[in-house]
Amino acid sequence: MTIRSLFLASTLLATLSAPAIAQRALPTAVTPDPAVAAIRDKALQDDVAYDIVSGLTTEIGPRPDGSPAEERARQWALVKLKALGFQNVRIEPYELKNVWIRGVETAEVVAPFPQPLRLTALGNSGATPAKGLTLPVVYFPSFNDLLLAPAGSLKGKIAFVSNAMQPTQDGSSYGSQGGARFLGPNVASTKGAAAIVIRSIGTDHGRGPHAGTTNFAPGVTPIPAAALSVADAENLERMFKTGKSVSLHLTLTPTVVPSRTSGNVVAEVPGSDPTAGIVLIGGHLDSWDLGTGAIDDGAGVAITAAAAKLMMAAGTPRRTIRVVWFGDEETGGFGGEAYAKAHANEQHTIASESDFGADRVWRFNANLPDSAKPVVDRLAVALAPIGVVRGSDKAHGGTDVEPTLALGGGGIDLNQSGLRYFDYHHTPEDTLDLIDPAQLRQNVAAWATMLAVVANAPETIGPVRAKQ
Amino acid sequence: MTIRSLFLASTLLATLSAPAIAQRALPTAVTPDPAVAAIRDKALQDDVAYDIVSGLTTEIGPRPDGSPAEERARQWALVKLKALGFQNVRIEPYELKNVWIRGVETAEVVAPFPQPLRLTALGNSGATPAKGLTLPVVYFPSFNDLLLAPAGSLKGKIAFVSNAMQPTQDGSSYGSQGGARFLGPNVASTKGAAAIVIRSIGTDHGRGPHAGTTNFAPGVTPIPAAALSVADAENLERMFKTGKSVSLHLTLTPTVVPSRTSGNVVAEVPGSDPTAGIVLIGGHLDSWDLGTGAIDDGAGVAITAAAAKLMMAAGTPRRTIRVVWFGDEETGGFGGEAYAKAHANEQHTIASESDFGADRVWRFNANLPDSAKPVVDRLAVALAPIGVVRGSDKAHGGTDVEPTLALGGGGIDLNQSGLRYFDYHHTPEDTLDLIDPAQLRQNVAAWATMLAVVANAPETIGPVRAKQ
Repeated sequence: MTIRSLFLASTLLATLSAPAIAQRALPTAVTPDPAVAAIRDKALQDDVAYDIVSGLTTEIGPRPDGSPAEERARQWALVKLKALGFQNVRIEPYELKNVWIRGVETAEVVAPFPQPLRLTALGNSGATPAKGLTLPVVYFPSFNDLLLAPAGSLKGKIAFVSNAMQPTQDGSSYGSQGGARFLGPNVASTKGAAAIVIRSIGTDHGRGPHAGTTNFAPGVTPIPAAALSVADAENLERMFKTGKSVSLHLTLTPTVVPSRTSGNVVAEVPGSDPTAGIVLIGGHLDSWDLGTGAIDDGAGVAITAAAAKLMMAAGTPRRTIRVVWFGDEETGGFGGEAYAKAHANEQHTIASESDFGADRVWRFNANLPDSAKPVVDRLAVALAPIGVVRGSDKAHGGTDVEPTLALGGGGIDLNQSGLRYFDYHHTPEDTLDLIDPAQLRQNVAAWATMLAVVANAPETIGPVRAKQ
Repeated sequence: MTIRSLFLASTLLATLSAPAIAQRALPTAVTPDPAVAAIRDKALQDDVAYDIVSGLTTEIGPRPDGSPAEERARQWALVKLKALGFQNVRIEPYELKNVWIRGVETAEVVAPFPQPLRLTALGNSGATPAKGLTLPVVYFPSFNDLLLAPAGSLKGKIAFVSNAMQPTQDGSSYGSQGGARFLGPNVASTKGAAAIVIRSIGTDHGRGPHAGTTNFAPGVTPIPAAALSVADAENLERMFKTGKSVSLHLTLTPTVVPSRTSGNVVAEVPGSDPTAGIVLIGGHLDSWDLGTGAIDDGAGVAITAAAAKLMMAAGTPRRTIRVVWFGDEETGGFGGEAYAKAHANEQHTIASESDFGADRVWRFNANLPDSAKPVVDRLAVALAPIGVVRGSDKAHGGTDVEPTLALGGGGIDLNQSGLRYFDYHHTPEDTLDLIDPAQLRQNVAAWATMLAVVANAPETIGPVRAKQ
């Protein structure tokens, strides 16, 4: 999951007050569909998703954007999706520009208390000299404090921004607390800083730093920028609290490759009615490089493919279900953009993405045309038994499908619990053991239920304007 | 905590059946001592221990055996212990031989599924060539399987031993499951292996490998030996389960320095009766290098010093309380040996050590002469209100104090809960955030209670044979 998505989620939840939730009580005039219930309950016994995420994390491992490992992942995906029985399985290639590649990354406190610190360079970080640089550090307890620093005041210094993130079920604190990463390096550069280190955007207290992309505005020098592990940032904060001056030796040597070929992997369950529109679901195949990309986003590709396979087993759906395993989400959503460009002439009934781990789905939001209100009512009834409540009519989709939603596709979000997601997000700890098989199956059940309702809906579901 | 201690703990618990526990119900004829209760309850409000462990982990950080950081830690300890009001504060130097120093440590799966693995060299590991070595891997699900491998069968191969450790309250699974680390490299070397990697001896599923020492018998070649993080070992196991051959590229470049000066730091609360024997308590000042040594053993030095300071504040005790912050425990208990040698002519009433983290004390064991049974009864009554039950009369002490116990000192163990200790033991995650201040205070209360009972006991407490 990347930056834009959570900024939107944050805005979205603020609109949902308790009375609004009460107004969205379950409709009572909807008869549950036994065929939908059957596929949902079958999903709760299904281990295809676990098999996929286990295979991907074991047989490929880390899959950073534009890397040979991401290419191997596409080839692995081709074989896997064909073996699962999907049709029209293919790679849709596109060109990925300015591929950022991690280099050496080390840091040591030089004074007052010499010791190593654990950190990781942020995507798009600039590089230090190969032997590193040693400079005094200026401490900013929050991103806002950095914003208040006078122009030029950071010349010859390393900025250290240490705002702490708290866990939230909807993940909205990523948006509200992530500014230190998303914007901090750009701000520090404009104020003259030689480099910046931030407390990882994460809710843990561990030693695994949280990777992630930052962006520099045109004309702003990309300075060396890194995230300290939360434990190391807390240690550095304690050093500042002794009142002594702090200096760091920092070495970051990332490089940039002008261009590489990348791609999305596409698979289909063809529908019986080509005029009814496509149901697009998926996740992203790429991952950050520190972990093996289990919760971000091996789980998402696994959940959506497993749900589509259950639909395949249940017979030909009315609408074609298209599963897309997108490329290069982490560094900017480039796979999603390439997909929308390549498929702009197709009608997408909905475009939905799973990219928030593998913990329980607790809520759904659906942005469909008013004419499709009965579809949403049926979905609410079908999802209730597995603990999924009805949210709002604003669905933001996710980085990969936002470009498709912008073309008029409807959106259905199946929101997962984010309470522990940011303990591990983009860290070395994002490995298979984080996946709880029971919760993963509940996810597959939610997605299979959604597909059973939407892909077979007899109503015409036309284009809809994206709401935010 | 090191190897020997837990082997003993493991043996010890097996002797404690339920009827034995029932026989050790609280004595009823003991009147609680208000002075002891006062110091115990004051400890539950005391933050000296947290201040010490915070300072040590922040201002020194990792303190590996024989390192300049360990020397800085001794200087830091001198200042700290004097500031706390202790008397006779001093460093007792000794020579540390064959100092093992970590080098580069990397590993990558070459086939069948190329990807990096996280590991750390074991103490006393041999070195690979600087460019590493690439060899096929032979998988042993358990240490026992390695023992069963035919002589010479590992020639030109890397052994991989992957037995899993389960958490236990008394930590005894470290002894029963740790053989892969303690003995595995020696066994693999004798069977011709070029190197060995083991699943970390730990109860987590994370990416932080668990460091620790291994030993090679005289005449056995010290082969390169490393611990994979548990998550990486699980990934490697899954690769083997695909039936494909696995090969690794392994680079470990540790070195050995023949000799360095090290030392123990000693501080005292002088007693009124020099003939009554010394009450020796402490922990170890050194730590593994991956974390900052908070639970192993910043907590132990902090707990014991804070308890002694509470005794100091309560007036002059009968017996001298000596706090020792031992050096070089992790690589072989060298500080404890040096202490026992230097102080062999002194009478130690007891020698007790805190070296098992900072979670709650749940049990005590006391090995005192029969004449001192009333002391143990009073201790049981005084510790009961803070949830510490009476265990057996076998106290193993801990690596640092075992040499002193062997000279006839009595032993009192205050056992901490080990249920999460081995999630973090010897990993990068051993940092200050693991310390729960409330549980740390309960530890200080248990130690202060023990000191108040034992240091002021009017009975003569003579030498006792160490029981195991």
